[in-house]
Amino acid sequence: MNTPLVARMLSLVAMLIGGSMVFSLPWGLPIFGGRWEDEQQGMLGLLGSIILCFAVGGVLRYLGRNSRAPLFRREAMAVVGLSWVLSTVLGALPYELSVTQRAPGIRMHFIDAMFESQSGFSTTGATVLTDLEDPALVPRCILFWRSSTHFLGGLGIIVLFVAILGQGSAGKAMMRAEMPGPSHSSPQARIQHTAWVLFLIYAGLNLLLTFVLMVEGLSVFDALCHAFGTMATGGFSTYNASVAHFATVPGLNGPLIEMTIVGFMFLAGTNFMLLYALLRREIRSVLADVEWRTYTGIIAAATVAIVVAGMYFHDFRAMTVGSASIESTEEQIERVGAEPRAVASEPLPVVKENRQRESLGGAVRYALFQVVSIMTTTGFCTADFDGWNSFAQALLLILMFVGGCAGSTSGGLKVVRHILFFKTLRLETEKAYHPSVVRPLRLQGVPVEDQQLRMNVPVYFGLALAIFTLSWLFVVAVEPESTWTDYGHEIEHKLIDAASAVAATLNNIGPGLGVVGATKNYANFSPASKLLFIWLMMLGRLEIYVILVLFAPSFWRRH
Amino acid sequence: MNTPLVARMLSLVAMLIGGSMVFSLPWGLPIFGGRWEDEQQGMLGLLGSIILCFAVGGVLRYLGRNSRAPLFRREAMAVVGLSWVLSTVLGALPYELSVTQRAPGIRMHFIDAMFESQSGFSTTGATVLTDLEDPALVPRCILFWRSSTHFLGGLGIIVLFVAILGQGSAGKAMMRAEMPGPSHSSPQARIQHTAWVLFLIYAGLNLLLTFVLMVEGLSVFDALCHAFGTMATGGFSTYNASVAHFATVPGLNGPLIEMTIVGFMFLAGTNFMLLYALLRREIRSVLADVEWRTYTGIIAAATVAIVVAGMYFHDFRAMTVGSASIESTEEQIERVGAEPRAVASEPLPVVKENRQRESLGGAVRYALFQVVSIMTTTGFCTADFDGWNSFAQALLLILMFVGGCAGSTSGGLKVVRHILFFKTLRLETEKAYHPSVVRPLRLQGVPVEDQQLRMNVPVYFGLALAIFTLSWLFVVAVEPESTWTDYGHEIEHKLIDAASAVAATLNNIGPGLGVVGATKNYANFSPASKLLFIWLMMLGRLEIYVILVLFAPSFWRRH
Repeated sequence: MNTPLVARMLSLVAMLIGGSMVFSLPWGLPIFGGRWEDEQQGMLGLLGSIILCFAVGGVLRYLGRNSRAPLFRREAMAVVGLSWVLSTVLGALPYELSVTQRAPGIRMHFIDAMFESQSGFSTTGATVLTDLEDPALVPRCILFWRSSTHFLGGLGIIVLFVAILGQGSAGKAMMRAEMPGPSHSSPQARIQHTAWVLFLIYAGLNLLLTFVLMVEGLSVFDALCHAFGTMATGGFSTYNASVAHFATVPGLNGPLIEMTIVGFMFLAGTNFMLLYALLRREIRSVLADVEWRTYTGIIAAATVAIVVAGMYFHDFRAMTVGSASIESTEEQIERVGAEPRAVASEPLPVVKENRQRESLGGAVRYALFQVVSIMTTTGFCTADFDGWNSFAQALLLILMFVGGCAGSTSGGLKVVRHILFFKTLRLETEKAYHPSVVRPLRLQGVPVEDQQLRMNVPVYFGLALAIFTLSWLFVVAVEPESTWTDYGHEIEHKLIDAASAVAATLNNIGPGLGVVGATKNYANFSPASKLLFIWLMMLGRLEIYVILVLFAPSFWRRH
Repeated sequence: MNTPLVARMLSLVAMLIGGSMVFSLPWGLPIFGGRWEDEQQGMLGLLGSIILCFAVGGVLRYLGRNSRAPLFRREAMAVVGLSWVLSTVLGALPYELSVTQRAPGIRMHFIDAMFESQSGFSTTGATVLTDLEDPALVPRCILFWRSSTHFLGGLGIIVLFVAILGQGSAGKAMMRAEMPGPSHSSPQARIQHTAWVLFLIYAGLNLLLTFVLMVEGLSVFDALCHAFGTMATGGFSTYNASVAHFATVPGLNGPLIEMTIVGFMFLAGTNFMLLYALLRREIRSVLADVEWRTYTGIIAAATVAIVVAGMYFHDFRAMTVGSASIESTEEQIERVGAEPRAVASEPLPVVKENRQRESLGGAVRYALFQVVSIMTTTGFCTADFDGWNSFAQALLLILMFVGGCAGSTSGGLKVVRHILFFKTLRLETEKAYHPSVVRPLRLQGVPVEDQQLRMNVPVYFGLALAIFTLSWLFVVAVEPESTWTDYGHEIEHKLIDAASAVAATLNNIGPGLGVVGATKNYANFSPASKLLFIWLMMLGRLEIYVILVLFAPSFWRRH
C-alpha cells in the first residue's frame, strides 16, 4: 500500500471539507436572517471547524510530501473508503462545537454529531436532532452546513476530484467505487469528461430547483436547503415536520411545492447519463431504457396500490403537523375504544381538512410523495406512514430495498440489480430442467457474457442480506427495552422497528417505522446502535465493498 | 413430456398412499384404545379414502398403460413434483371425511384438510386443528394418519420407490429432486443401495425412538406418533400442548422425555450418510465433517445466547400448560400494571414450579429444546417462545432459515449452503481489491471448481428471499385485520407475525410468532393465505426448483 500517496489525497479531502464550511458562515449574519445571539455559537463553531480541517489537511499533506507513484486500484479504494471516514469526523465538528441538544448548555454527544454528519454525507437524512426550529439549539448556519453535507455527498466528493484533477485509471477506479450502481462502461479517456458532465447536471438541477422553490414562495435559505436534500436524495429538512411544513404556512401552495419536490426527487433517482441524453434531445434513448421504465413502473404501481389500500383503511385522515401526529376523531375513538356517539357532539376542527385529504386527489398527493421519497431513498415526509395500514408499510419497507437507478444519487440496491437478479433467477430455474441449454443473460437486448458479472448481483444481494440480518440481530440485542417503553411505544414493536431502522440506514433513506417513524428520529437509540447505523450508512452509500475491504488485513499488506 | 409414463408412476404413488392408510385403521379399534362411538366416523373415512386412492391409482394406471420409454430427468422432476400435489390431495381425504372442526357437525373445510395433509407430508407440523385431545372432533385413527404423513414425507416417498424399483439415472434425478441438500455425489450404480441405506437408517431410528419412549412410559400410540414427528423433523404431536404435555402427567419424567426427543431431533437434522458412517464405526469422519461441526456449533451457541438473554429477562417463568399460557403472578402484575404488593397476599400455586424453571438447569432445558426444535425445523414446543425477549425471538427467526444438514430430513436452507454462501461472499469481497487473484472455493479442503456450482448457492438464497418477500407482502395484503383483533392480538403485530408464518411454512418448521405462536395455530387464517402456505410448504420441502418448474410452460412442451 502506497501510504504517502493516500495521505496526500486525503489532505485534499480535509481541505475541501474545510473550504465547504466557509459557505455556511454567511447564513449566521443578520443580513441573511440570523440573530446574533443565536448564531454566535454556530459561527464560532464553524470557524473552529474550518481551522481544524485545514490543520488536519496540513498534517496529511506533510505525511504525504514524498509521494510520487501513480494511483492504483487498491490505493484508489483506500482513498475513497478513508475519505468517507475522514469526512464523517471532520463534518461532525460544527455540530459538536455549536449544537445544544435537548436542554440549554448540554453539548451534543460526539457519536450523535458523527451520526448527523454521516447521515448528511451518505444522503440518508436520518437525524438525532429533536428540534430544528429553535436557533438557540441549532443555529441557522449549522442547519445550512447540515444540508450542505447532502450536496457534497450526493455525487461524492471524489467525482468533483476526478473532474478537476483527472486521475486516469485511478480516477476510473475511484469513480467506480463512489458512483452508485453496477455498470460504468465509459472508456477510460473520457472519465474526466464524464465526471464534469455528472457534476454540471447535478449542480444545475440544484440551482434550478432552488430557483423554482423561491418562485413558489420559499426563502433563499429554505429553497437551497431543500434543493440540496432533494437532488442528493438526502432528506434533511429545515423544519421538524419535513416538507409537510409548507402546507401549514398561510400563503404557500403546499401541494404545488410537494409536487415540485416529487418531480425533482424523481429526476434525482434517474441515471444522470440519461439526463445528459435528454439534454442532447435523445428522448428515445431515455424511453427505451429498461431500468428507467422499470423504475417509473414500480413508482406508478406502488402509488396505485397505496392509494387503494389507504383509501380502504382511511389512512389519509391522520394529519401530521409539527412533530406530532394529529388524529381524526374517529381514529381517536377507535383507539380509545369509546362509543362514537359519545364524542360526536364535541367540535371537530380538523374534520374538514381530513375529508379533503381523504379525497382521491389527496390520497394520490400523499401516496405519491411518500412512494417517490422512499423509492429514491430521499426520506422527506408529508404524511406519517407509520400510521398507515400494514400492507402499505410492508410495501414501503420493500421499496426501501429497491432504490433508484444506477448512476443516480439514490441509495438502495438499485433497480438495474433487481432486473438482473430476476433474470438470473429465471435462467437458473430453467436450467433445473434443461441443464444442457445455456442461454445468455440479456440486458436491453445485449447479452451479459461475463460469468463473473452474472455472479456479482446475487453476491451483492447476499452481502446486503447478511449485513441486514446481523445488524438487525445486533440492534435487537443491544438496544434496551426503554428505547421503546420510555417513549410510548410497545416493546412488541421492537423487532419490526429495529428491522426498519437498519433498512432505512443501510439503504440511505432516513425514516422507518415506529420509534424511527416519519415524525420521530434516531435520538433515543443507544450509542452502540448509533455507531452501527453510522457504519451502515457508509456501507450503503459506498455499495459495501469499499468499506468492507478496509477491514481486511491483506488489503493493507505491502506486496 | 412422456405423459403416460408420468401417469404410471403417479398411479404407484396413489396406491402407496392408499396402502399406508391401512396402517391407521387399527388405532380406531377398542383393543388399541379407541372408543367405537368416536372412531366410527374416522374408520369409515379412512376406508373411503383408501378406496378413493386405489380408484385414482387405477385410473392413472389405465392412462399410463402404453408407457415403455425410460424415465429422463424432466419426467423424473414432473413425477416428483406432481406426486407431492397428488399426495396432498389424497392425504387430505381422511381429514375431510372424518374430522369435525370447532363444533359438532361442522365438516373440515377442504383447504384446511389440504393444509393439514401438506403440513404432514412436508414435515412442517403447522396445524389448523384447534383441539387434538377430543376424539369426538379428531378420531384417534385420524390422528395416527396425521403422524404417518410425517413418516411418509420425511425421507420422501420417492426414496422408498428408488429403493424398491431402482430406476437408474432417473432414480438419481428423483433422489436429487427429493432429498434435501445441495450435494449428492453417489455414483449412479450405487443409487439403489444408497436409497436402501437411507431408508433403513430412517426406519431404524423411528423404531428405536418408539421403543425408548415406551420405556419412558408413553403408550404405543403416543410413542409411535412422537417418533414419526421427531425423526421426520415434522412436529405434529397428539396433544395440544405438544411435548410440554408429558411434563404435566404425573408419573412421567418430563425432562427425560424432552431430552430424549432433543437427542433424536439432533440426529434427524444430521446428514444420514454420516449416521451410516457412524454405524460403520467411522467416528472420525463424523467429527471431521465441516457441516456437522457447524450445525452442532450453531445449536450450542444459540442455546447459550438464549439461556443468557432469557435468564436476564426472566423469560422462563411463563409456563405453557394445555393450549393456554399460564403466567407467573409477577408477569400478570407487569402486564396489568398493578402494584406487586396488592396481589402478593393471594395464594400462588405455580410460583414454586416457576422458580424451578428459572434455575440454570431449567433455562438450559427449555432453551435447548426450542433451539434444536427450530433449527432442525421440527417445531415441537415445550415453552411459548412468543413470550420470550425480542432478542431470543429474532435469533429463533434467523435459525428458521438455517435448518439442519444436507441429506437429513430437516428443512430450511441447510447448514452447508450457509457455509458455501459465507465462503463465496468472502472470496468475492477479496476480488474487489485483488481482481486478478482467482482462488478456488473450498469445502472440507476440496476445491469446488465448477463455476455453475458456485453460482447455485447465491441463486438458491435469492430464490428463497424473493419467495419469502412476495409471500409476506401477499399475506399482509389479503389477511384481514380481524385475524389479529378477533383473537386478542394487536394489529401492529401483523407485519412480524406474517413474516414468521411465511418463514415457518417455507422452511417446514410449524410454529412462528404471535397469531401462529407455539400455543396457537393456523386455523384463523383466510383460505387465500392457507393456499399460499400449502404451496410454500411444498416449495420448501422440495427445495423450490421442482415445484417452480411445474409452472413453466416450456417444461411441459414436447420436444
